[in-house]
Amino acid sequence: MLKPEHGRNRVVIEEVAPQVDAGRHAVRRIVGERVSVSAAIFADGHDELAAQILYRHRLERKWRTAAMKPCGNDLWNGFLVVDQLGAWRFTVMGWIDRFESWARDLRKRLAAANELAPGEMVLALRTGAVILERGAIRARGADAQKLKEAARSLEVLASRQTTPAEYPLSEEIHRMMAQYPDLTLATRYEQELPLWVDRERARFSTWYEMFPRSASPEPGRHGTFADVERQLPEIAAMGFDILYLPPIHPIGRAYRKGPNNAASAPPGAPGSPWAIGDAAAPDVRPDGKRCEKDCGGHKAIHSQLGTFDDFERLVSAAQAEGMEIALDIAFQCSPDHPWVREHPEWFTIRPDESIQYAENPPKKYQDIYPLNFETSDWRGLWDELYSVFEFWIERGVRVFRVDNPHTKALPFWEWCLDALGCKYPGTIFLSEAFTRPHLMYGLAKRGFTQSYTYFTWRNTKSELEEYLREITRPPVSEFFRPNFWPNTPDILHKALQEGGPPAFAQRVVLAGTLSASYGIYGPAYELAENQAAQPASGKSDSEEYLHSEKYEIRQRARSAPGSLVPLITALNRIRRANPALHSNDSLHFHGVDNPQLICYSKAAPNFDNLILTIVNLDAFHEQSGWTNLDLARLGLTSGEAYFAEDLLSGERYAWSGHRNYVVLRPGTKPAHILRLIRQQ
Amino acid sequence: MLKPEHGRNRVVIEEVAPQVDAGRHAVRRIVGERVSVSAAIFADGHDELAAQILYRHRLERKWRTAAMKPCGNDLWNGFLVVDQLGAWRFTVMGWIDRFESWARDLRKRLAAANELAPGEMVLALRTGAVILERGAIRARGADAQKLKEAARSLEVLASRQTTPAEYPLSEEIHRMMAQYPDLTLATRYEQELPLWVDRERARFSTWYEMFPRSASPEPGRHGTFADVERQLPEIAAMGFDILYLPPIHPIGRAYRKGPNNAASAPPGAPGSPWAIGDAAAPDVRPDGKRCEKDCGGHKAIHSQLGTFDDFERLVSAAQAEGMEIALDIAFQCSPDHPWVREHPEWFTIRPDESIQYAENPPKKYQDIYPLNFETSDWRGLWDELYSVFEFWIERGVRVFRVDNPHTKALPFWEWCLDALGCKYPGTIFLSEAFTRPHLMYGLAKRGFTQSYTYFTWRNTKSELEEYLREITRPPVSEFFRPNFWPNTPDILHKALQEGGPPAFAQRVVLAGTLSASYGIYGPAYELAENQAAQPASGKSDSEEYLHSEKYEIRQRARSAPGSLVPLITALNRIRRANPALHSNDSLHFHGVDNPQLICYSKAAPNFDNLILTIVNLDAFHEQSGWTNLDLARLGLTSGEAYFAEDLLSGERYAWSGHRNYVVLRPGTKPAHILRLIRQQ
Repeated sequence: MLKPEHGRNRVVIEEVAPQVDAGRHAVRRIVGERVSVSAAIFADGHDELAAQILYRHRLERKWRTAAMKPCGNDLWNGFLVVDQLGAWRFTVMGWIDRFESWARDLRKRLAAANELAPGEMVLALRTGAVILERGAIRARGADAQKLKEAARSLEVLASRQTTPAEYPLSEEIHRMMAQYPDLTLATRYEQELPLWVDRERARFSTWYEMFPRSASPEPGRHGTFADVERQLPEIAAMGFDILYLPPIHPIGRAYRKGPNNAASAPPGAPGSPWAIGDAAAPDVRPDGKRCEKDCGGHKAIHSQLGTFDDFERLVSAAQAEGMEIALDIAFQCSPDHPWVREHPEWFTIRPDESIQYAENPPKKYQDIYPLNFETSDWRGLWDELYSVFEFWIERGVRVFRVDNPHTKALPFWEWCLDALGCKYPGTIFLSEAFTRPHLMYGLAKRGFTQSYTYFTWRNTKSELEEYLREITRPPVSEFFRPNFWPNTPDILHKALQEGGPPAFAQRVVLAGTLSASYGIYGPAYELAENQAAQPASGKSDSEEYLHSEKYEIRQRARSAPGSLVPLITALNRIRRANPALHSNDSLHFHGVDNPQLICYSKAAPNFDNLILTIVNLDAFHEQSGWTNLDLARLGLTSGEAYFAEDLLSGERYAWSGHRNYVVLRPGTKPAHILRLIRQQ
Repeated sequence: MLKPEHGRNRVVIEEVAPQVDAGRHAVRRIVGERVSVSAAIFADGHDELAAQILYRHRLERKWRTAAMKPCGNDLWNGFLVVDQLGAWRFTVMGWIDRFESWARDLRKRLAAANELAPGEMVLALRTGAVILERGAIRARGADAQKLKEAARSLEVLASRQTTPAEYPLSEEIHRMMAQYPDLTLATRYEQELPLWVDRERARFSTWYEMFPRSASPEPGRHGTFADVERQLPEIAAMGFDILYLPPIHPIGRAYRKGPNNAASAPPGAPGSPWAIGDAAAPDVRPDGKRCEKDCGGHKAIHSQLGTFDDFERLVSAAQAEGMEIALDIAFQCSPDHPWVREHPEWFTIRPDESIQYAENPPKKYQDIYPLNFETSDWRGLWDELYSVFEFWIERGVRVFRVDNPHTKALPFWEWCLDALGCKYPGTIFLSEAFTRPHLMYGLAKRGFTQSYTYFTWRNTKSELEEYLREITRPPVSEFFRPNFWPNTPDILHKALQEGGPPAFAQRVVLAGTLSASYGIYGPAYELAENQAAQPASGKSDSEEYLHSEKYEIRQRARSAPGSLVPLITALNRIRRANPALHSNDSLHFHGVDNPQLICYSKAAPNFDNLILTIVNLDAFHEQSGWTNLDLARLGLTSGEAYFAEDLLSGERYAWSGHRNYVVLRPGTKPAHILRLIRQQ
């Protein structure tokens, strides 16, 4: 081992946090957030230390600094504020504070003046003068002058050969010396740690998924962007801020699926929007010209939905309603996709020269060709996929739901999402991966802003509590932002199938209060559609919808009698009005003596806003019980009386202490969403 | 972000363990040990993966490999064996196993042959043939031929256009394909992780500390190396394997301390061996010539102890008794040390040109000059300190106890211990740092083989259990090896002062059974010397010995009546005979329904050797209670009867289940050290 370059740097820095995989991936935060940075900082011996955070945005050359303070046991803490979107780096610097070490010893000497050796005080004062003079050289302007004067005053005291009556330097001198530290032998932590800053909606968002082709009010007519536009006020009134559309591209003809996923499609069947690509489609490019190349693929619009003008008008109209349009990016191709002809090398070729379709033997998905990320032209493939995002970003889209990202190579996502995020700050990517934990987390680490979760399959109290503890705390919460979906066009969980409207009410309240981001697929959700497909196999555990909208146009009015629109509207209003629900960091589960009731709180900083939610997990029976609240986590003291205002019902309860009675009834009162208010 | 070089490498590798601080420091193991390596390894999609460990010693150019196996949830595990001392590196490689993926799908196709599309089986067989042909190109000799034949057999099957009756390839073909993997697109973990391999004694050692100057049998005469040599058989008979001597160098004269740390020494006072250096000493160098430079310092022997020849004879004689001599390396200088004259730049100079002595105002240690690791000649200082170790290594010393390493710069230790460890494999360094946890652990991470601990100040059951759990489990156990000392010349704990011989008996049993390495300072320990100095301050919490041997010659016979020699001899015999006590990894605490009793087990692999220790923590009263043994951790089943053989008393108890009665009495039966034997 060679000697290091800087062998005199005695300070050691370890355990710098936050980190994801030792700096391999970025910690994710929100713009404007105060980011707490901690580290273990120590040195040999007994000198006083000082430390600071260094941080900068990728576009900045100069490091900004933020002071760190010791908080015991060699741990230090400080805060930085991220005021720009995108990529940041931070690190930590520590050094021996010679001035404060000297000052500490001088104070000890003054306190034990009668035990000093002859000349000891004189030497101590002269040592201090030297340190202050060196500080004066580093200082600027008037500060330099003041430090010089302080040095001189110590020299004067030394020359008197007596012990000063009191500590001779002012707080101002200490502040100045801290301002102009001697960093010659400072240690910098080995790594610069990455930090990625998103906009607020990355953390707090409310999604509504709908099929535009079902949006027509006229029975039997294929819906259009204009039809969606007409529904915008209704959707905005429910309190959603992201309107997510399944793929809007031309749909393949070869092996097109019929209703209920039938192997063959009857004439006129619309097919699945995820079977993307029809090179023969009457596709008109944004510039109005007929396309020569790459037509009918991921940069085209299914002609029955409308034109590019219609799409851009929809994007603008959504913005006017306070909403954003999210597109679905599904990197897979129907056999009719233009890439199949133009870039057969991007697919897997079988020994008979045919292209490999998707399969899980013996199941075949002949309407879908997966891309081969091991192609020798991977650079060309990556560029083209990147350009798909860019194409839609240039048309005003800033939110993408990415279909099955776990079947595309992770190095691609790492490159693509970083490049897009830097060029188009604030773009949001939702990962639709339902797979094993490492792979789901691996995608989040590689740049997905939000992720689908296992929420749909977490139904009991212990399942929910365990899962939420995992995803809302470090290390997972440093890089993974959950988005809870009680349903999707692919997933109608047994709990909803069997529980009907009461279960729908419970699950949406859970989603919207447990997770700062959630979404529903409507109008199936508002209408509590709970008829599952009976698969050919006869197995009854299907999570597919009967007459799934994936294969059929389904027109219905979301505000039919008994619809959940009022509940969802109230929930979203409560979410917006209560900052406690805008993040997950403060989530805490409280006791309640009934396994069918779940109880949890979220709090804004300093308990300025405090929401306690209690949900009945039983869709069939009234459940009641006594809470066992962890008062410290609510900022309350043990004997304290407080109000619990039910934001759903408007009722107000006078509560006190940790033990309070609750009763919830399926259908009429699925949950309490209580704002706790101290009686002051 | 630029595109990576290898964008096609789809496998992701994370969470590689063992690691210390993400590979910043080495994991420590013992030569011959089987090292378990684990990692999370996964890729997009559903392909089968394969993985291996790559590892090599620092002196090897070629990587060795060891296969890894999946163990669920994307976690993989494998083992490497370290067969050489010193620095190793390891990493992990993973890849898509195209052959096994194909084979899995073929098996599924065979199982559902009637659901296949026309031509599907033919294509599958031809695909397999292509994969086998490529494997044949990578294979060597006869294997290549066999793989070619296997490929041909699949082609033949394909040409028949029928479904094979059974899976067509042998296990041998699968083994061969695993032996010649296609690593073209393999992913290698970003880091090579360091692993440091020590010899067995680094993990399991039994230390005895004594002052050679007290070793003379003639009253009043200064002890010599020859006197120590005469005691070797007695010390070896007690079962110690490392004999550690405080500094053996010339002792400074300036500000020499008198008995009981008196500020001035009466004529003839021997002074503290840690006040190292006397340039005026009649020092004779190993070559017999009078030294010209650097005489009387860290490379010299205090003339009253003997000559270099005497020293080397002692080293050899110890070896003959199965022991090693450990020297104390204390990098500090008396004002008379040759470095003070030759290298004043290595010390801190005060404004009056004098050298700064050690101090903690108002306390002064004028007999000690600390080295200044911020000196501009730090390279010269490092070289000199390194050469001190090397000097003694060349004289046969392979074990060092390093005094106060926490007051020397950590970058120095990192460089010095690594350089010494590489040049002189198997050298053992014991860190004598009693300071804050981060600093103690920081020293261990930088290369100390063993470390003193807080054991001395952990006396109650909960204190002991909590502390042992911390230091015997990862992350700490990956780099920190505890060495438990119930006493040292600096530390006579209140528990010993007050508890007398019964406390000495309890604490030595705890040290020797809780920790694979322990040591005592004798003969003070055997004689249960428990008289503390009364400090001038009148505070009674002194841990200093009265008439501390640090400042006086203390001659006494360790086998006086009531001595603990028999107990210590038995303890060390038990330690040697029972492999369970040779490491700490298996330490497990069991319940016992009396807070004054502590109960714990250690087991050798496969429970081949199983030791259950129960110690009475009360030095004054008999204590009894019922155990609540965690039978699974003892390899026992709940109804099972077994023998508990007390290795201290020779008694044998017939026990069964988790609940058994124990009674221990101070003085006569301090502890049970039970070997558990299944009745088979």
